[in-house]
Amino acid sequence: MRLTRRYRFCASHRLHSGALSEAENRALYGKCNNPFGHGHDYVLEVSIRGPLDPATGQLAPVGVLDRLVNDAVIAPMDHRNLNLEVPAFAAAVPTSENLAGEIERRLREAWPPAFSDSSVALAGIRLRETKRNSFETAS
Amino acid sequence: MRLTRRYRFCASHRLHSGALSEAENRALYGKCNNPFGHGHDYVLEVSIRGPLDPATGQLAPVGVLDRLVNDAVIAPMDHRNLNLEVPAFAAAVPTSENLAGEIERRLREAWPPAFSDSSVALAGIRLRETKRNSFETAS
Amino acid sequence: MRLTRRYRFCASHRLHSGALSEAENRALYGKCNNPFGHGHDYVLEVSIRGPLDPATGQLAPVGVLDRLVNDAVIAPMDHRNLNLEVPAFAAAVPTSENLAGEIERRLREAWPPAFSDSSVALAGIRLRETKRNSFETAS
Amino acid sequence: MRLTRRYRFCASHRLHSGALSEAENRALYGKCNNPFGHGHDYVLEVSIRGPLDPATGQLAPVGVLDRLVNDAVIAPMDHRNLNLEVPAFAAAVPTSENLAGEIERRLREAWPPAFSDSSVALAGIRLRETKRNSFETAS
Amino acid sequence: MRLTRRYRFCASHRLHSGALSEAENRALYGKCNNPFGHGHDYVLEVSIRGPLDPATGQLAPVGVLDRLVNDAVIAPMDHRNLNLEVPAFAAAVPTSENLAGEIERRLREAWPPAFSDSSVALAGIRLRETKRNSFETAS
Amino acid sequence: MRLTRRYRFCASHRLHSGALSEAENRALYGKCNNPFGHGHDYVLEVSIRGPLDPATGQLAPVGVLDRLVNDAVIAPMDHRNLNLEVPAFAAAVPTSENLAGEIERRLREAWPPAFSDSSVALAGIRLRETKRNSFETAS
Repeated sequence: MRLTRRYRFCASHRLHSGALSEAENRALYGKCNNPFGHGHDYVLEVSIRGPLDPATGQLAPVGVLDRLVNDAVIAPMDHRNLNLEVPAFAAAVPTSENLAGEIERRLREAWPPAFSDSSVALAGIRLRETKRNSFETAS
Repeated sequence: MRLTRRYRFCASHRLHSGALSEAENRALYGKCNNPFGHGHDYVLEVSIRGPLDPATGQLAPVGVLDRLVNDAVIAPMDHRNLNLEVPAFAAAVPTSENLAGEIERRLREAWPPAFSDSSVALAGIRLRETKRNSFETAS
Repeated sequence: MRLTRRYRFCASHRLHSGALSEAENRALYGKCNNPFGHGHDYVLEVSIRGPLDPATGQLAPVGVLDRLVNDAVIAPMDHRNLNLEVPAFAAAVPTSENLAGEIERRLREAWPPAFSDSSVALAGIRLRETKRNSFETAS
Repeated sequence: MRLTRRYRFCASHRLHSGALSEAENRALYGKCNNPFGHGHDYVLEVSIRGPLDPATGQLAPVGVLDRLVNDAVIAPMDHRNLNLEVPAFAAAVPTSENLAGEIERRLREAWPPAFSDSSVALAGIRLRETKRNSFETAS
Repeated sequence: MRLTRRYRFCASHRLHSGALSEAENRALYGKCNNPFGHGHDYVLEVSIRGPLDPATGQLAPVGVLDRLVNDAVIAPMDHRNLNLEVPAFAAAVPTSENLAGEIERRLREAWPPAFSDSSVALAGIRLRETKRNSFETAS
Repeated sequence: MRLTRRYRFCASHRLHSGALSEAENRALYGKCNNPFGHGHDYVLEVSIRGPLDPATGQLAPVGVLDRLVNDAVIAPMDHRNLNLEVPAFAAAVPTSENLAGEIERRLREAWPPAFSDSSVALAGIRLRETKRNSFETAS
């Protein structure tokens, strides 16, 4: 059994790689390289899997999942400038690929003992940047 | 090739486990423990997989799938009180996890010979409780 | 300028009119007359209109609107049985038409002075029962 | 007859009013007052109305509408920082209310002669900031 | 009170006006002038308004509305070629504007006595050609 | 990491198999066997997977993917009659299953060297015929 729960947050970012020249950055990232930044409303889906608890009929208490996602991801990223306010993006470019990777890393690091104890594991995340693009990790 | 088809039904339920005290039930299920019940519009996605029939260019006739899902799931659950009108939930708590499990069990039990004969198998189901939560089984 | 804000709540109900016979009730309401009830995830859109406050660039603080809608509608109706737990439906049938009317009446009765003082008025509500049906009042 | 056409653009902004103190700004705009900005994916619906051209069976060529909206709104706002790159928001706060007003003003100013000549008028716009909030003007 | 109910149908069409030259047709309708036709999944929203029946708590029985829409619109248009199978489009171009007008005309002509008797009137229709375009009539 | 990107196109088709009698065709395909054809707005999701490029923080430039999908699928199919204008459906029935297979075959054949060189592979496609039906291939 697998449970997927949906969250939303908005943030601004600028795509610019220190490994590339100004011209290469403009060619690669186009409008996303605009020095003043732009923003998105991200949709984050977090999937967990594990056995059902027969007493409760649930995979896991959603409150525990919500606290995890809120503390590790939403609170530090919602209504933020990713380049300036999320340490991982001081060096790495805040593309949606890197953002998905960072979110997954944060969820793993903060994985609650209540989940580990009952064999509830992260199954993967999906980050929707816009209606047209989404990024998935499978665990 | 995999075909996913979407169905809808609405039902009411109350989450309350006989294995837990009143206080534990209230703490665990929150508003869902309200003794008078509440309801949802469930979205059910049923996925099947198998080889294409070269004569028809189809995986399976959707009419056969619709009859299966209607007879096994929609007719006995739509506009029903799950606790009082679906026998499986006389004992088990009608959480979405248990509901997804019950739906999958019913589909397997009623799997039509026309599907078995042409190697069309259930690939899994996804039950969306609300926009925020969905539950998947993989077969 | 008009602002529309979306809320969600779920509830169960049974459609049965004391002014009609059993047979008439079954003929009129069909599956919705099931004595054990069923439920829906309602989407409620509340629209307000008024002049912009030049200092804030806003029509109204959304927090005031959220408190109004929560206190007058969501808290007393979410995860409830409308027939048994909302006094208006002890007598009236909890059709979506009557539910929309009751929601509008509650919003008017609890209209906050902060809104009246700045000429912010209710423009209307829209209640979506399912993807297929919605009900609107205009004020 | 009325035609509504949907566009999308993303932008970043910060809500901060020079008419208010730092503390008032924080209290009023909350997370949206974050000095480093944040962003949204806006959905813009533009509605026009007028008589049908009997030769073409159309209200207006959508290409003319698309050019208008692109030149007046999308090109100067998409992937931009509204505070720093859209002159109207050097002084005014880029709330969605003010942004909707600015978009309507730009459409009126650039209204094409081809539309005026055939009595095609702006019927109004709707700006969706997020799934929860939208802002409408009627003309 | 206003009730809006949503229907779907799919059809193919070709946009070509006998009042225009081949070159004008290609310039005006672009890909929609392709001689072999193309198709859409239309979403049709029908809105009715009227007083509530105090005995039933309903504006109108939805079964009556469904039969009207099915008989007058869905049955003769669903899975059809609009140019070849809907008489109105032997002469008129099946643009969405003309299709919306034809649908409204059909609903008015077939308006059921049960609705007229209880003062239930057509409030308007909305025809969504694609996610990007919709066409509305107000009555 | 897996990136899914969404495209849309509309087309008309008729379901009719030369391997079946007229009566069998009508029984099997129902309204979709209508000799004058009908149409759909297809949603196509293309998923690719591969390693991230550390310099750009991207899986692949979306421009390369867009050109591939446009040249191999959208340009030859959008606003077309699949039976008459797409060679594969001169013989095969343009069911959504066969259409999904044809789309996947075209993407593989035109797979760009820039993707092969950086180990970016097709992960699968999903073709949504309507809100109710979708078809997936996994690679």
